[in-house]
Amino acid sequence: MSKTDHKYSTVHYRNYLSLDKLLSAQNLRSEAQGEKPAHDEMLFIIIHQTYELWFKQIIHELESVVELFRKEKVDERTIGNSIIRLERIVSIQKILIDQIAIMETMTPLDFLDFRQHLFPASGFQSFQFRKVENLLGLETPQRMTYNGCPYSSVFSPEKEEVLMQMERDTSMFEAIELWLERTPFLKVGDFNFLEEYKKAVDRMLAKERKAIKESPFLTEDEVDMRINMLEGTDNYFSVVLDKEKYKALQEKGEIRMSYEATVSALFINLYRDEPILHLPYRLLRCIIEIDDSMTAWRYRHAQMVLRMLGNKMGTGGSSGHSYLNATAQKHMIFKDLHNISTLLIPRSELPTLPDHLKKNLSFYYTNVA
Amino acid sequence: MSKTDHKYSTVHYRNYLSLDKLLSAQNLRSEAQGEKPAHDEMLFIIIHQTYELWFKQIIHELESVVELFRKEKVDERTIGNSIIRLERIVSIQKILIDQIAIMETMTPLDFLDFRQHLFPASGFQSFQFRKVENLLGLETPQRMTYNGCPYSSVFSPEKEEVLMQMERDTSMFEAIELWLERTPFLKVGDFNFLEEYKKAVDRMLAKERKAIKESPFLTEDEVDMRINMLEGTDNYFSVVLDKEKYKALQEKGEIRMSYEATVSALFINLYRDEPILHLPYRLLRCIIEIDDSMTAWRYRHAQMVLRMLGNKMGTGGSSGHSYLNATAQKHMIFKDLHNISTLLIPRSELPTLPDHLKKNLSFYYTNVA
Amino acid sequence: MSKTDHKYSTVHYRNYLSLDKLLSAQNLRSEAQGEKPAHDEMLFIIIHQTYELWFKQIIHELESVVELFRKEKVDERTIGNSIIRLERIVSIQKILIDQIAIMETMTPLDFLDFRQHLFPASGFQSFQFRKVENLLGLETPQRMTYNGCPYSSVFSPEKEEVLMQMERDTSMFEAIELWLERTPFLKVGDFNFLEEYKKAVDRMLAKERKAIKESPFLTEDEVDMRINMLEGTDNYFSVVLDKEKYKALQEKGEIRMSYEATVSALFINLYRDEPILHLPYRLLRCIIEIDDSMTAWRYRHAQMVLRMLGNKMGTGGSSGHSYLNATAQKHMIFKDLHNISTLLIPRSELPTLPDHLKKNLSFYYTNVA
Amino acid sequence: MSKTDHKYSTVHYRNYLSLDKLLSAQNLRSEAQGEKPAHDEMLFIIIHQTYELWFKQIIHELESVVELFRKEKVDERTIGNSIIRLERIVSIQKILIDQIAIMETMTPLDFLDFRQHLFPASGFQSFQFRKVENLLGLETPQRMTYNGCPYSSVFSPEKEEVLMQMERDTSMFEAIELWLERTPFLKVGDFNFLEEYKKAVDRMLAKERKAIKESPFLTEDEVDMRINMLEGTDNYFSVVLDKEKYKALQEKGEIRMSYEATVSALFINLYRDEPILHLPYRLLRCIIEIDDSMTAWRYRHAQMVLRMLGNKMGTGGSSGHSYLNATAQKHMIFKDLHNISTLLIPRSELPTLPDHLKKNLSFYYTNVA
Repeated sequence: MSKTDHKYSTVHYRNYLSLDKLLSAQNLRSEAQGEKPAHDEMLFIIIHQTYELWFKQIIHELESVVELFRKEKVDERTIGNSIIRLERIVSIQKILIDQIAIMETMTPLDFLDFRQHLFPASGFQSFQFRKVENLLGLETPQRMTYNGCPYSSVFSPEKEEVLMQMERDTSMFEAIELWLERTPFLKVGDFNFLEEYKKAVDRMLAKERKAIKESPFLTEDEVDMRINMLEGTDNYFSVVLDKEKYKALQEKGEIRMSYEATVSALFINLYRDEPILHLPYRLLRCIIEIDDSMTAWRYRHAQMVLRMLGNKMGTGGSSGHSYLNATAQKHMIFKDLHNISTLLIPRSELPTLPDHLKKNLSFYYTNVA
Repeated sequence: MSKTDHKYSTVHYRNYLSLDKLLSAQNLRSEAQGEKPAHDEMLFIIIHQTYELWFKQIIHELESVVELFRKEKVDERTIGNSIIRLERIVSIQKILIDQIAIMETMTPLDFLDFRQHLFPASGFQSFQFRKVENLLGLETPQRMTYNGCPYSSVFSPEKEEVLMQMERDTSMFEAIELWLERTPFLKVGDFNFLEEYKKAVDRMLAKERKAIKESPFLTEDEVDMRINMLEGTDNYFSVVLDKEKYKALQEKGEIRMSYEATVSALFINLYRDEPILHLPYRLLRCIIEIDDSMTAWRYRHAQMVLRMLGNKMGTGGSSGHSYLNATAQKHMIFKDLHNISTLLIPRSELPTLPDHLKKNLSFYYTNVA
Repeated sequence: MSKTDHKYSTVHYRNYLSLDKLLSAQNLRSEAQGEKPAHDEMLFIIIHQTYELWFKQIIHELESVVELFRKEKVDERTIGNSIIRLERIVSIQKILIDQIAIMETMTPLDFLDFRQHLFPASGFQSFQFRKVENLLGLETPQRMTYNGCPYSSVFSPEKEEVLMQMERDTSMFEAIELWLERTPFLKVGDFNFLEEYKKAVDRMLAKERKAIKESPFLTEDEVDMRINMLEGTDNYFSVVLDKEKYKALQEKGEIRMSYEATVSALFINLYRDEPILHLPYRLLRCIIEIDDSMTAWRYRHAQMVLRMLGNKMGTGGSSGHSYLNATAQKHMIFKDLHNISTLLIPRSELPTLPDHLKKNLSFYYTNVA
Repeated sequence: MSKTDHKYSTVHYRNYLSLDKLLSAQNLRSEAQGEKPAHDEMLFIIIHQTYELWFKQIIHELESVVELFRKEKVDERTIGNSIIRLERIVSIQKILIDQIAIMETMTPLDFLDFRQHLFPASGFQSFQFRKVENLLGLETPQRMTYNGCPYSSVFSPEKEEVLMQMERDTSMFEAIELWLERTPFLKVGDFNFLEEYKKAVDRMLAKERKAIKESPFLTEDEVDMRINMLEGTDNYFSVVLDKEKYKALQEKGEIRMSYEATVSALFINLYRDEPILHLPYRLLRCIIEIDDSMTAWRYRHAQMVLRMLGNKMGTGGSSGHSYLNATAQKHMIFKDLHNISTLLIPRSELPTLPDHLKKNLSFYYTNVA
């Protein structure tokens, strides 16, 4: 057969999708052990398999985006495509969350028909899920321990080494951090973003303080409470405006992202309408959505386990619900990006950009044509 | 190793789910042919694989329910469980529809990166999807032809025979029809459901006719139009009240379900609050939802293909969008159950059931305790 | 105009839905205060209004179901309809959760364009939401305080009194509890459900204990750990099997539902295939779903607030995110029903019901025909 | 009260949202007419009211975007925000579609409890829905007639005039068309996009033709069929490459969008990775999604009506299902944008842009820094 022939050799849907392999991969343990097959075990296997297929897809997308962003110089022409891939992840995560509803059509009683056969297998042993976490940038110290064992101990030594290597490699968190740190524009000519921003924050807080104190509708106690909360906000602003304070919090582990990256992310969020900043803004928003969806998935997963098992221990030997619930709180990776919202100020208070900077932030054609 | 040992031999998540098989089943054609792998081909493969996995699950559920309902005597204790399984199918279908949104994150341009390699494979070659259709009861004469070929011609002779055999076997449609035909209660003692229902319909239509004619707000033309439409309704009622007319329509292919089954389905819908009829009512509703979801899926699928290919022919050589769109209109299976809605009358017009019948429709305990 | 005329007086979509009222109820504060209207304030108002409309619908359904269930004798013919109404609530809650995604299309920066005008209004002041909580049966001691104030203090004295009265009235929790307590069948003739169940649990735990101890795949530490967890399960079972222990936990506030109601709920869950128990089983499942959806809504709401405000205080003066997050954990109402899952045992271990009881659990027709 | 006082006068959630107005706008016709209130009429009113609220929001967004795009010169800095608003519409439409599931919890029998009171009101009388259609650019000749009457005849003369004026004003369709027509870059220096594109199409079709003819796996008939279909594709390409042919189709009403706009849309789609084209590309995609969601909503609506009424006429006197179903097919507005997909060619065949053009398509900073 010539090369041309081969190129167009006939391909059938069945071969293309390896359906023989795929559709023979559902082996009911209840059946394997000589018992009457438990009807609902099929669902249990198939839904987990769809999860693993989607995890593979998420890994495929994350790896490609990290690859693009860990470069010294990120090509502007790849940002649009990266966003499309991250949006795809969000769209997959939505299905991962929604399809928990399918699992919930399995009642606790039906689960008990085959649960004993699963022992001691557990979702805790999903290698791909750990890869997703590591690719995003979850750090070991952030991780919940599980029955006192490190998360990687349930895998073969080879797989364990893969996870360890991933921890050393550049994750999405680090790639984005590096990319943010390289944002130009923060100091151009006589424009110093941080200084202008600081003035704007002071103006804004003074206004709010005045409004609270002069309000004829608040009791004295309410005024005090609100002023107190405002001071809290003030403190938060002061941290990002003072590199030393920031570093102190970083050392205490309360902040992870570098000072420079945080300031850039703030700049991008505030001036997102400028053409050159709009896609970077969208990219950051996508990452927040991915992080949020991970959290939402963990919660829904925890809820489902509670409904299925109540306080029974999971097949892996853990108290599934409380472990999962705790990871939802602790395993958030990009909370520093979430916190940028705290630092935003209204558009009406925003320092005006000088013309030469605006030019730099827009299209060549607009300025030259 | 003793039997006990074996029984509790350790099972790992990876083995249990056959992950080695599952996760090695994604072979990019773009890569196989010595080209740069097309990034989005992975998504194309994986999403189709999840569809096939879910089809397997749907088949698993449908087969089990058909099995229960094709029995001469359906055990009341299995109806609850059957409904749970049909609801599961609805819940899976919801995901099948929603995850089209993931496919739509692949842009037409990205699809073109590998589309030529798929030729001539096509979703038309999904064997499991044809099984789902046959299990539900889609008949060959109802089917759209596709490039002039029968739907089964794209499969191996063995698989083709499986599909042919399924056409001969009892489908969900037939199992439900048989079960409905066996509904007792329609003539008990001096109570004849059809007669009472006929009187009620006449009363109701007379009222509506009077209301239209006496309305001071309608012009003469409007009155005529509405009276005309009401006659249409009247005709429809008259069909179900006259076995001969019904059979005539059946012979013309406009109705598929038997007269007896239709009358029973009507009875169940009207008196669904009676304990013995409530689960049967839910069962019928589930089947309508499954049929509706099939239709909704076909539409969304057609829309997605239009967006992806415009008027290009599909890889299977068909004009994908128009074929799929046409199946959505034609491949509805349970439209006779949908039409029951046309026959319903308000509760206030409903013939009262005699006490002896009400007793028969309720619980033993309620009557004896 | 005669009565008949009036009855069919023309009604237009616009009047029927009071659209003039409805569509004139969006008054932007930013505009009212002489500023340029903030474009996104319209979304903020409209989405909250849809929430309030849906709350009204939820209240409508909850009140009707509580009304039916607080009766001394619940008519079996109303259970089907009650389930349909509770399922409707679940279906509304799904939309309440999903439409948070619409809110999230408003970016933090766009929110800042009008946020200062909202001060000090807050979602904490939604009267209808408090009614929903009270109707379901959230108790004051369970409630989070909010800035140290009772939840009802932000309303007018009349509205406050309504909430207080609701706390005294029968809630869904209490109505269901009373209804469960009246379940017959737990002791019929020589059949004593609790005794039979206790034996079955002992058999099952003994088997599991043996399996763990004899497993050649577990290290000694793992065996110890698993045995420990099993003891925990054992303890949990022992509580429900020992009324004194149960009451002790109830007094400590760890359990709320009465002993009798819990045992009945367990019975219904275990023998749900019996015709008379299937709808009660579905009803309990619906209530769990409503409770779960409330929790899921609180989480998503908290997430959205975090994304919008970061650590800023809410317009009501609270740290919105942490308050909402805490309510998700604490404001669960039916956790005793969730815990029933802990008490389930596999069908294979289930005590067989004596024939006379089975008869009582099935239909009259089945036994007499 | 001073201005400052007024500015911060206390605002309560209840006033802010006009809840007294909003929550008193549910008047059950069944109750008004002295009958027992039909329980499910509340749902019927409330769900329609949420639809109307969301329609108001969609109008708010559409008007703001049309306003921006009908300008002679569209400010690049407003495109990002326009996309966010269009994405918001998509996100609202998703809820409009999904919440049909809430309506479907109302059973046909429950609907009959109050249906007669609605007569002759009908969703056909939603003024806001017609505004949405007109804002998007649905033209009268495209519209289905409804009982033979023009769509605007069911409104008051004032409202009718508003709709007529909207037909004369610039719609989204026209604003986008004008904006596309003004796209520069199609002929720059020695680069003529259409000429280069034509060559590429010819190359590609020649390759495909060769592949089909040389395939050893196709029968002669299959080869003929595929070549035939390919000619169809060829024809389609030839239309866009030949202004005269295009205009002929336009006059026949098969195409609506101008030749120049179509060529620009094609250019934007093919070169969307260039920074200056990426947001325009996203904008076009959003518009397609809005159009698709309208179609999806019409289908689901038609399905729901079928389930509720069967073949009964709607309260407006129409055969609701078939009317709605037909609008889904006919009321698509941007099908010319969908058809761009037909014209796409693989990236590997794409003509390379000359350097001077690439510079014009990228950022100022990139080229000057």
